[in-house]
Amino acid sequence: MAIKFGVAGSGSWATALVKILTDNGHKVNWCLRSETAIGFIKQRHHNPKHLTSAVLNTRSLYLTTDLPAVIERSEVLILAMPSAYVAESLQELGPGALKGKKILSAIKGILPGENILLNEYLERYFDVSLKDYFAVLGPCHAEEVAAEKLSYLTFSGVDELMSAKIAGHFKSPFINTVVNTDILGVQYAAVLKNIYALGAGIAHGLDYGDNFQSVYIANSADEMAGFLRKFGAEHIVVGEHTDVDDPEKKYANYSASVYLGDLLVTCYSLHSRNRTFGNMIGKGYSVQAAQLELRMVAEGYNAAKCIYNTNRSLKAEMPIAETIYNILWEGLPPAKGFEKIEGFLI
Amino acid sequence: MAIKFGVAGSGSWATALVKILTDNGHKVNWCLRSETAIGFIKQRHHNPKHLTSAVLNTRSLYLTTDLPAVIERSEVLILAMPSAYVAESLQELGPGALKGKKILSAIKGILPGENILLNEYLERYFDVSLKDYFAVLGPCHAEEVAAEKLSYLTFSGVDELMSAKIAGHFKSPFINTVVNTDILGVQYAAVLKNIYALGAGIAHGLDYGDNFQSVYIANSADEMAGFLRKFGAEHIVVGEHTDVDDPEKKYANYSASVYLGDLLVTCYSLHSRNRTFGNMIGKGYSVQAAQLELRMVAEGYNAAKCIYNTNRSLKAEMPIAETIYNILWEGLPPAKGFEKIEGFLI
Repeated sequence: MAIKFGVAGSGSWATALVKILTDNGHKVNWCLRSETAIGFIKQRHHNPKHLTSAVLNTRSLYLTTDLPAVIERSEVLILAMPSAYVAESLQELGPGALKGKKILSAIKGILPGENILLNEYLERYFDVSLKDYFAVLGPCHAEEVAAEKLSYLTFSGVDELMSAKIAGHFKSPFINTVVNTDILGVQYAAVLKNIYALGAGIAHGLDYGDNFQSVYIANSADEMAGFLRKFGAEHIVVGEHTDVDDPEKKYANYSASVYLGDLLVTCYSLHSRNRTFGNMIGKGYSVQAAQLELRMVAEGYNAAKCIYNTNRSLKAEMPIAETIYNILWEGLPPAKGFEKIEGFLI
Repeated sequence: MAIKFGVAGSGSWATALVKILTDNGHKVNWCLRSETAIGFIKQRHHNPKHLTSAVLNTRSLYLTTDLPAVIERSEVLILAMPSAYVAESLQELGPGALKGKKILSAIKGILPGENILLNEYLERYFDVSLKDYFAVLGPCHAEEVAAEKLSYLTFSGVDELMSAKIAGHFKSPFINTVVNTDILGVQYAAVLKNIYALGAGIAHGLDYGDNFQSVYIANSADEMAGFLRKFGAEHIVVGEHTDVDDPEKKYANYSASVYLGDLLVTCYSLHSRNRTFGNMIGKGYSVQAAQLELRMVAEGYNAAKCIYNTNRSLKAEMPIAETIYNILWEGLPPAKGFEKIEGFLI
């Protein structure tokens, strides 16, 4: 039986996910923020502002600005707005509004202000249990989905069978899917990668070359895996259908696309907002000046603080992420910070 | 006491190493192939053809075309010619010519024809023991050494103290050094990375995008680490001064710059010959046509065969490297090969 999907979000990533599902012949209930956008999509078959090159099959779409109506009509609700808009988007909902629904998070990063992952937020305000919570992540520029370039998406959740079922709806000639049970780990990896990509931008702004970047990124991959391994050991979440006694399966494979692959695409992409933001910091802009110039704060900025706080108790060895935190939040001059980082790299 | 270094090789990498040592105030005995080049360097203070932007302090150089004279004057002989010229360069030497000398390999890749690593070659023909053999490797475009951009070099050898001593001569404001005892592993990593970079070129030629490349490279890193771990378990080489009983130290850290870093810089560099060669294969050129057009065979081509043969007995799981072997050596169409690879990636 096909799953009934709802999507909340109007941006590129929401549009890409809607395209994947409707291209696969699935009906989607899509909650957008503006009636104007809805009218445009109905008439022109593409999003007016975001990912405009993705042609959308409107016959498979139920378009509305009414989120409760979308929830009502859907079994799996995909949250795909920028993390900064989650609280605002969900504020009209009562505490029981998500009861009986599965949530698929397509949110990248933590919720600013609250500094928590989406699953914690949903548990706190809507009593959503972790077993009803899933995440879709991976190295996936929305632009390449629009261009139908082969991309890999990882579907993670403690309910491995349900993850696989959801994944099956996304598999297509240009989307390969991977299933994973490390639901907390994959989300932390997505947060961490933004810190390291911001750092790669700082290094670029400081005029380090390709040789250094490769050393920096390789060591960042190692630091990220170290955090995830330590976090996994303390907060192990294993899928219901996973062989827990097999020590090989105790930890995820941190070289998989959702971990290392996503780190690579984010660090090496010249279009990454984290990299661009970091580049300005490296060139001598203050955080405030970079923010004004780019009209946004890169996700890695909040991520650095979130991970710094999380790691106070976890105590993983994270000299790179900590130094980037010191640069962004404690006024350490970028050049001094990277002199320190130089000494940690092997 | 300063080590007396000899360098054999006339290309970019030899020139970069000479620059590093002489910038550090060390005298170097340098064997070049042509008297013309020697005359040019004496007069103009840079190599006439290779890495011409590197200014060389000729007062610290003893320049000659006489390899035995260089060996005679040196304690550590750095071999830094392209792997294809090793046999020709050493053919004038008698079997005892390297007796009592330490060899520092700056050769990237295996020796074509023989399909073996340099240490095996030197043991076979010159009775050089592994304890007198060292390698300098890492993600290091020679151009960035010339530009004095910070780069990391790893010095590997079973004699860890001697590796550290050699490394100390290279450490400078723009060179950081790492010491490692996994002398066979680092050399295999340097061979493997060329296969995967050639594959990244094929994928580019086949029009895969950045999302796919990141998944491919992350999975390649994992496959490489799997080979090295299995190889290490069977042919473990531990430094004399390493704590063998510490299981953490049994394997090297495969995220370090000499492994993952070098893979990244090679796969992502648009200047990599392996990537360029692979790109042509992906576009439909035959190996022979690509070779004619580029006037060279990329190292990954021979590397694919070498690793395929080595892995017949080792039996590490290497579906990516094997498929690239099938494309290059057994006529598998690149598009078909990458359809297979798609199925292996996670």
